[in-house]
Amino acid sequence: MQIQPGPLLAQIQTPEDLKKFGKDQLVQICDELRQFIIDQVSVYGGHFGAGLGVVELTVALHYVLNTPDDQLIWDVGHQAYGHKILTGRRDRFHTNRVYNGLSGFPKRKESPYDSFGVGHSSTSISAALGMAMASKYKNELNRQHVAVIGDGALTGGMAFEAMNHAGVSDSNLIIILNDNCMSIDPNVGALKDYLTDITTSRTYNRVKDEVWNLLGKVSKFGFSAQDVVSKVEGAVKSALLNQSNLFESLNLRYFGPVDGHDVNHLVEILNDLKHIQGPKILHCVTVKGKGYGPAEKDQTKWHAPGKFDKITGVIAKKVHQTPQPPKYQDVFGHTLVELAKMDDKVVGVTPAMPSGSSMNIMMDAFPDRSFDVGIAEQHAVTFSAGLATQGLKPFCNIYSTFMQRAYDQVIHDVCLQELPVIFCLDRAGFAGADGPTHHGAYDLAFFRCVPNLVVSSPMNEQELRNLMYSATQFNGPYSIRYPRGQGVMTDWKTPLEEIPVGKGRCVQEGEDVAILTIGHIGNYVTQATEMLTKDGIVPAHYDMRFVKPLDESLLHEVFGKFKKIITVEDGCLMGGFGSAVLEWMADHEYHSQVVRLGIPDRVVEHGEQEQLHAECGFDAKGIAATVRKMLASVAIPY
Amino acid sequence: MQIQPGPLLAQIQTPEDLKKFGKDQLVQICDELRQFIIDQVSVYGGHFGAGLGVVELTVALHYVLNTPDDQLIWDVGHQAYGHKILTGRRDRFHTNRVYNGLSGFPKRKESPYDSFGVGHSSTSISAALGMAMASKYKNELNRQHVAVIGDGALTGGMAFEAMNHAGVSDSNLIIILNDNCMSIDPNVGALKDYLTDITTSRTYNRVKDEVWNLLGKVSKFGFSAQDVVSKVEGAVKSALLNQSNLFESLNLRYFGPVDGHDVNHLVEILNDLKHIQGPKILHCVTVKGKGYGPAEKDQTKWHAPGKFDKITGVIAKKVHQTPQPPKYQDVFGHTLVELAKMDDKVVGVTPAMPSGSSMNIMMDAFPDRSFDVGIAEQHAVTFSAGLATQGLKPFCNIYSTFMQRAYDQVIHDVCLQELPVIFCLDRAGFAGADGPTHHGAYDLAFFRCVPNLVVSSPMNEQELRNLMYSATQFNGPYSIRYPRGQGVMTDWKTPLEEIPVGKGRCVQEGEDVAILTIGHIGNYVTQATEMLTKDGIVPAHYDMRFVKPLDESLLHEVFGKFKKIITVEDGCLMGGFGSAVLEWMADHEYHSQVVRLGIPDRVVEHGEQEQLHAECGFDAKGIAATVRKMLASVAIPY
Repeated sequence: MQIQPGPLLAQIQTPEDLKKFGKDQLVQICDELRQFIIDQVSVYGGHFGAGLGVVELTVALHYVLNTPDDQLIWDVGHQAYGHKILTGRRDRFHTNRVYNGLSGFPKRKESPYDSFGVGHSSTSISAALGMAMASKYKNELNRQHVAVIGDGALTGGMAFEAMNHAGVSDSNLIIILNDNCMSIDPNVGALKDYLTDITTSRTYNRVKDEVWNLLGKVSKFGFSAQDVVSKVEGAVKSALLNQSNLFESLNLRYFGPVDGHDVNHLVEILNDLKHIQGPKILHCVTVKGKGYGPAEKDQTKWHAPGKFDKITGVIAKKVHQTPQPPKYQDVFGHTLVELAKMDDKVVGVTPAMPSGSSMNIMMDAFPDRSFDVGIAEQHAVTFSAGLATQGLKPFCNIYSTFMQRAYDQVIHDVCLQELPVIFCLDRAGFAGADGPTHHGAYDLAFFRCVPNLVVSSPMNEQELRNLMYSATQFNGPYSIRYPRGQGVMTDWKTPLEEIPVGKGRCVQEGEDVAILTIGHIGNYVTQATEMLTKDGIVPAHYDMRFVKPLDESLLHEVFGKFKKIITVEDGCLMGGFGSAVLEWMADHEYHSQVVRLGIPDRVVEHGEQEQLHAECGFDAKGIAATVRKMLASVAIPY
Repeated sequence: MQIQPGPLLAQIQTPEDLKKFGKDQLVQICDELRQFIIDQVSVYGGHFGAGLGVVELTVALHYVLNTPDDQLIWDVGHQAYGHKILTGRRDRFHTNRVYNGLSGFPKRKESPYDSFGVGHSSTSISAALGMAMASKYKNELNRQHVAVIGDGALTGGMAFEAMNHAGVSDSNLIIILNDNCMSIDPNVGALKDYLTDITTSRTYNRVKDEVWNLLGKVSKFGFSAQDVVSKVEGAVKSALLNQSNLFESLNLRYFGPVDGHDVNHLVEILNDLKHIQGPKILHCVTVKGKGYGPAEKDQTKWHAPGKFDKITGVIAKKVHQTPQPPKYQDVFGHTLVELAKMDDKVVGVTPAMPSGSSMNIMMDAFPDRSFDVGIAEQHAVTFSAGLATQGLKPFCNIYSTFMQRAYDQVIHDVCLQELPVIFCLDRAGFAGADGPTHHGAYDLAFFRCVPNLVVSSPMNEQELRNLMYSATQFNGPYSIRYPRGQGVMTDWKTPLEEIPVGKGRCVQEGEDVAILTIGHIGNYVTQATEMLTKDGIVPAHYDMRFVKPLDESLLHEVFGKFKKIITVEDGCLMGGFGSAVLEWMADHEYHSQVVRLGIPDRVVEHGEQEQLHAECGFDAKGIAATVRKMLASVAIPY
């Protein structure tokens, strides 16, 4: 179904078309753009609230700027639907986040209007500053470089690093602070309070009152206090709201706060800002989900609601006839609460992902023992290390892809010191529709090489529970990775049992070929075996559970018995689980034929997880085909 | 030679001893401690200026706090010499930074007074906050948690992440801002200007003047302007220096600035701060190198000067009879200038390491084309990505160990987008005396798994030059790793030649065993071959130059010819270069015996690089021994 745009939007394919309209038509264009996004997402799903919140900003920016020559960067990027629709992609927008379709995030290869690929937060100021400094060096003095960044993303440390540099850069940089008090979940931290403070002008009002009172007291001198006050106010206001503002402290000229939904006012201000040299920040106050009632009311739920009925605001839910296995996320959340009840040393840490990781289950049950530290993965890890030094057992839950942000802290602050922090890597393996910026493809490789770190992954809900429990019994750094989405067990609340560190298991005895797997992906082998059994082939299947330490006695058994071995992982082949098996084999002088299945050494785009597994040849069919090939030939060309 | 402490210091083995002295003796204790550090470092070498700068802070903190129960964390840690001397390690201090001796940084396993291991910057607030929150949870309300952090380290983003969290934490946290305007090199950035601004009270004075002028204008009303001003000043000052201070914006109570060399005043203030609940920051102004004239004057040179004559201030230099090969660092710096002269797209980026990386050579030659972005590795990488989008060719030079901080940015902002950023990884392999926090042990493993990234390493100066040149000719992400210290060529300014991506070379034809090496460590093979030749053994030696992509045709040649192969790398064995060779071997169905030499999967402590290579068995002797063993037996136990 092709969604029809409104009459004005229908005439806009590019920002050039937008510029043909008069300022008096911008409000209508915003309305039509907002409606188009609502229509699209209600039918096709995707990110929602963030995009609605920046409709006016999007129209104003493209109206004022000379994109794509002017560089416009959308931090995190999931709010860029309006941007995509106005920059040549309206007619393809129904393919958004679909396999082989448009990316859900700005992407340089997709459009010249996408100046910078964005998916992880807090990168935009650095990138825009790099562009601005390049323009300065090339003497392109009129080029604009705009970073649109949310107040949540601003808590990420690299945004601060970039502002510290920008402040002394004399660059042509505009930072648009999109202040909506939300990430996916409500923002936390001192910065948020500060921004609210500015917006409600509490500080300013307080000082104004103080000065008024003081001057009132000296009114006995007989002058007109009111007259003085109005002048003093000017000085104090300029001092407070400009010179001594947090951003002005960093030498960024601060403007605002302004209403981020007043498109005409935004156009005016942006036109002014274009002519002010040097780094500057415009503070816009917006509402996430603006213009769609239910989304304004429950902003977390409507961050990415999936398909919904746009009239009733009812979000579509799949109806199942039979009980379904839970999401791994919920197994994590409920098991954490269970462990916390058993052991008062257990605490939880999340960097701004309470709902996504289901840490909110813990936060509801033990608010004093769970910490949402903001979009701040680095701090989350070292903060957890600090907790661990005092004998606590922190579960630090970070998506695999975001753990890349805290890699140094894992090495330097946790593992070198052998501190018992338990890392739960959510969204490990292919993230699905979010695509390459969010795939958890590398963690097995980059964690495996860190000394003292246990690297594990469960094949099902029961194993996740048992690994979590086992981690609390282990006095050292411990990581557990699991994918986004459902497990395989409906009856998953099994009793907690300790799994010895480095202990794998045989899932299925078999002949001729052994398949070694790590994590949830092992369930494909069960399906593959069903396909193969028809032809009388029964491969053996081992769920290794640990990439580090490897179960050496199990490996001796396997390599002693099998000359043909397949390894399967939902992670990069370079340096991953299969690579660990090869190292072990070389060190122990076995010479079996080993074929490794996993994520190849290239960027795999977005799509359903199963589509991507199939593309990379490690879904059930792919595994079965590999078994057949290995059995059919002596050597497999790779 | 055992250095003798002064008469008071001689009576101090622990902070308990220190507390026995009266406040009136603290100045002398500081003098003696400072002298002891000067005596030690002049004879044994080590970090110098930073330690001298915090002598008074160190004495005051241990005098006031109840360490080790109170938690004291020294950010970066190289200023903790005084701390170590006062906490039971004075008599062993001559073993500082020596193989099997004391660590040059605080280390939990070394002493209960070392609350947290620190080496990389900007971690202290996160760790201290974790400890403080744990104390709060455990209801230990009187415990103090102190992070001492420099103004340079404060530019690292995670420090900001931590302050954002601390500000809403209601924790018993004291942040001591040690403001000396220096990292190893002078600090840069807007924050530095801001701190100077507070210290010199420019903002405050400016506003005071403005108010004064305004009130002067209304003096016609006949009141005493001066009287009003003194009152208004109070309001404005409190507003400006407290409520609207950058730190107060983040809800940290701000105190200072105070003289960080007035030990008695520090004791007073710290005693007061202990009794103020909630997160707070004390701004201390100090001088790096305080008390030793030459070190105060040239702070970069005296950061870690090596041994010196404490009377004359002359730093010892090794005298060589013959010309010496240059440091790889200087080869990098001079070659970058050469490339910049040839190609106006070449620019340089460093996160606060101009002198350490020799980027200062580029900064002197092309100040407009080199960027010191502060201690901000994440920003450095994404800023470079921004430059690259505009057609520039940034050389982003980051120590291997600090690249761990920017791992996500390398993946997400550079490699997924295939942007031509050239990463130069300095200090790759063992860092030497700095020890495990600084070893560049993991980069081959964590870079190898990133798609689109070329991973290379030169065996000598000529190769470094050629790889740097080749990188400018390649349109994609490119990394070059090299160790700290000297190369091997005295005549190193060879003409620039392009090395095709993924092209290795045969260094030495040989028989029976092939040795594959990556990088500088390959020179050990030359020495090993000399040892072996006496016994008629001549191994073949291949300098692979690239870990990714591997030289496949060369590998086919090697594996076609040799059944016994050794790989050698100055990097972790898990997932590194040898692992890449094993993957290739498995994928191509060769079955040679491969023994991998490199850094084992454990924490290797500090020592001279050569000592550590020997410990891990990949110095020349170790390589020769491995060759003999392989030739002597069919299977080598590993």
